[in-house]
Amino acid sequence: MATIVFCSVNKAAQTATRRCLAAHSKRVSSAGDALSHLPSVHTLLPGARWFSRGTGVRFMSHGTAGRSGTARRGSLALRGAAAVTAAAAVTGLLANAQHFQRAEMATRVSSAAEKEEDEGTIVERCRGFMCLPVTDVGVLQARKGDMRTRMELMIMETQAEFCKALQEVDGGTFKVDRWDRKEGGGGISCVLQDGKVFEKAGVNVSVVFGELTEEAAKQMRSRGKVLKGKDGKLPFCAMGVSSVIHPKNPHIPTVHFNYRYFEIEEEDGTKQWWFGGGTDLTPVYINKEDAIHFHKTLKEACDKHHPQYYPDFKKWCDRYFYIRHRGESRGIGGIFFDDLDAPSQEEAFNFVKSCARTVVPCYLPIVYKHLNDSFTDEEKNWQQIRRGRYVEFNLVYDRGVKFGLATPGSRIESIIMSLPLTARWEYMHEPAKGTQEAEIMEVLRNPKEWV
Amino acid sequence: MATIVFCSVNKAAQTATRRCLAAHSKRVSSAGDALSHLPSVHTLLPGARWFSRGTGVRFMSHGTAGRSGTARRGSLALRGAAAVTAAAAVTGLLANAQHFQRAEMATRVSSAAEKEEDEGTIVERCRGFMCLPVTDVGVLQARKGDMRTRMELMIMETQAEFCKALQEVDGGTFKVDRWDRKEGGGGISCVLQDGKVFEKAGVNVSVVFGELTEEAAKQMRSRGKVLKGKDGKLPFCAMGVSSVIHPKNPHIPTVHFNYRYFEIEEEDGTKQWWFGGGTDLTPVYINKEDAIHFHKTLKEACDKHHPQYYPDFKKWCDRYFYIRHRGESRGIGGIFFDDLDAPSQEEAFNFVKSCARTVVPCYLPIVYKHLNDSFTDEEKNWQQIRRGRYVEFNLVYDRGVKFGLATPGSRIESIIMSLPLTARWEYMHEPAKGTQEAEIMEVLRNPKEWV
Repeated sequence: MATIVFCSVNKAAQTATRRCLAAHSKRVSSAGDALSHLPSVHTLLPGARWFSRGTGVRFMSHGTAGRSGTARRGSLALRGAAAVTAAAAVTGLLANAQHFQRAEMATRVSSAAEKEEDEGTIVERCRGFMCLPVTDVGVLQARKGDMRTRMELMIMETQAEFCKALQEVDGGTFKVDRWDRKEGGGGISCVLQDGKVFEKAGVNVSVVFGELTEEAAKQMRSRGKVLKGKDGKLPFCAMGVSSVIHPKNPHIPTVHFNYRYFEIEEEDGTKQWWFGGGTDLTPVYINKEDAIHFHKTLKEACDKHHPQYYPDFKKWCDRYFYIRHRGESRGIGGIFFDDLDAPSQEEAFNFVKSCARTVVPCYLPIVYKHLNDSFTDEEKNWQQIRRGRYVEFNLVYDRGVKFGLATPGSRIESIIMSLPLTARWEYMHEPAKGTQEAEIMEVLRNPKEWV
Repeated sequence: MATIVFCSVNKAAQTATRRCLAAHSKRVSSAGDALSHLPSVHTLLPGARWFSRGTGVRFMSHGTAGRSGTARRGSLALRGAAAVTAAAAVTGLLANAQHFQRAEMATRVSSAAEKEEDEGTIVERCRGFMCLPVTDVGVLQARKGDMRTRMELMIMETQAEFCKALQEVDGGTFKVDRWDRKEGGGGISCVLQDGKVFEKAGVNVSVVFGELTEEAAKQMRSRGKVLKGKDGKLPFCAMGVSSVIHPKNPHIPTVHFNYRYFEIEEEDGTKQWWFGGGTDLTPVYINKEDAIHFHKTLKEACDKHHPQYYPDFKKWCDRYFYIRHRGESRGIGGIFFDDLDAPSQEEAFNFVKSCARTVVPCYLPIVYKHLNDSFTDEEKNWQQIRRGRYVEFNLVYDRGVKFGLATPGSRIESIIMSLPLTARWEYMHEPAKGTQEAEIMEVLRNPKEWV
């Protein structure tokens, strides 16, 4: 399919590609000074090795966007998770419906480079993807300014940049599976399994659409708003990128992120839309420096948009990724939000973009830092027990997974790929006092403020 | 605690113990001829090694009970599973609320020996248990003929005999944990982990009681009958034995069983009661001889009570242990039933006893048969993948587990102990055509009639 599309790209596209590459170069050269105001990142970076293939990235977002959000965030917190998953269920997206975005491998670079990238032709942007977007490139080109197009390109870019960064550190190659959804849309699942660094790394994109019943639409939206459809049916579109990375080394934490966008059209043509997403870290052992780096990076991305985003979405994350029957969090959190439809579509999208762009700078420095850490059998065993808890959360509580599994027509492999390659359940395992295992249990039972 | 009770047992108890041991000897001597009419068992038995510690056992139940059941079984099938688990949730029993019984290690021996055992003093019977019953022995003695007492002794015996049979084959020792439930009752969890033969073997008993709201009581019973309580409260009692055994060798299947009993008292003093339970097998590879032996043993136990029991409860089992999102059964089934309150309490109890007594003869011959089977890394890997599916079923569908996890005050370790020690999830794993792995997938996708 790639051939068909790229064959239709002629001289104009080639010119555009050259322009795009020039923009990339700019970012490379600007990456160095971008680090200068980030002491914690400096500390973490062992020679900035994670700058992959000459693609420069900056770790943070003190950039162009500014604090554009208005208030009313607090009122959103802790309401929308059900909606996300109900929506996912409806669309058959599920685990896929947990998402994330990213384009140029990190946060923002320079307004010039960014502007240039945003203006690159769609065909050029597609060249960097893991495969062609779900939506036909012709359709994307025809509705270039539409949020569906912008979001789809953003999640495709996020997938590609993250996969490439992981491939670079691992040395392995992602298996790319493109799949169709009978009722409309499809997805692209990228999995790197049993690599050198990663036990299992999955990065999923899905873009699905069709029609919802009014009841389903109501459930989809956490606010439970009644939506009026034509003859009871409401056209919808749901898309997102989601990822879970399980490394082999117990000193490298698991990371998860997802960024997603929903649209529902009412009878009178009014469009309801909202964003959701988040990024969170699940270490096997507490490393304070890593935890601070991770949260600080997220906080800085949030703070650019609204000072209440990070504190609210951090809390939301702690509450959502909670294994109730164990009385412990899945990990050390991060951010989680849903039902975000303010202050404007443009600003909400920019916030989601900022979040997506922090995934690589949040995670890759931690991976590189611990790449060659030695570990004992006991540490590996503890990792396997924590993997078991990860499985418990994902199968028992994760709404995306639950609704996905319950929805006929879901692509099960794309949902289940969030599970680790291996896991372990030991009866009555409780770490001895004073051990590092006991230290993390203390944190998981009493979530901390890291920044 | 054992000391306290057994110190109060004097000469009379010692005499009774001698009488009980004599009964055991009788069973040993009668075990030989009991096998003569069971060709499939003969084939399976490598020297009848599983006759543990001189405790004679017969494999089947062509004994004293006869076909005592009346009809109306068909109408029960496929209705009660939700009730079991709702009940479990209410009681905080959950996984524990999945049960099983057994006294003398197998089916029935001779009416003389059986009568003698049934008439043995409660203190004598307790001597063989893994620890003291949940209910105080004095209380049990005071209400000797009560079904709660008879069932509790039966599940304690089932636990003990099964644990002892497993210990004998493994060489390891069960860890015995006694726990209390704040609201009333408690349980005894026996776990043998990382043994020579068994990766993880758990055998749980729980006996819980207290008060239910009318709504909870209604949910507890699958028929959704409205029950009238005093001031809206209904005293209840729920007890059972449940077990999951995960062996190390991929040629030895996993077995699960549970047998349970519920009682609810209405305002006017009327007691609602019912039994539930089942035994099912989850092999990693299909061995037809094992499958036939397993189902034949169950069928013969059922047939003694009603000709419709086996076909109905076999179907119920296939439907219950179904991993919907995979479109495959968890294993090759067995029997599963719930809400059994006919034809009489006595006959229902006898049926449950017969089922419980078939656990050892269903399973141990298969364990011994494959004890020294060699296996490859690939076979071990396939076992780990199947273990992953077991986890999926237990965490996503098993109602006992689900409600258990959702119920505050549940003993999580006793619920989670049904999970294997280790499991694996490989992305897009599909066995190649013509392999033994493909053979079992075919059976799991299309459940077979084995007898």
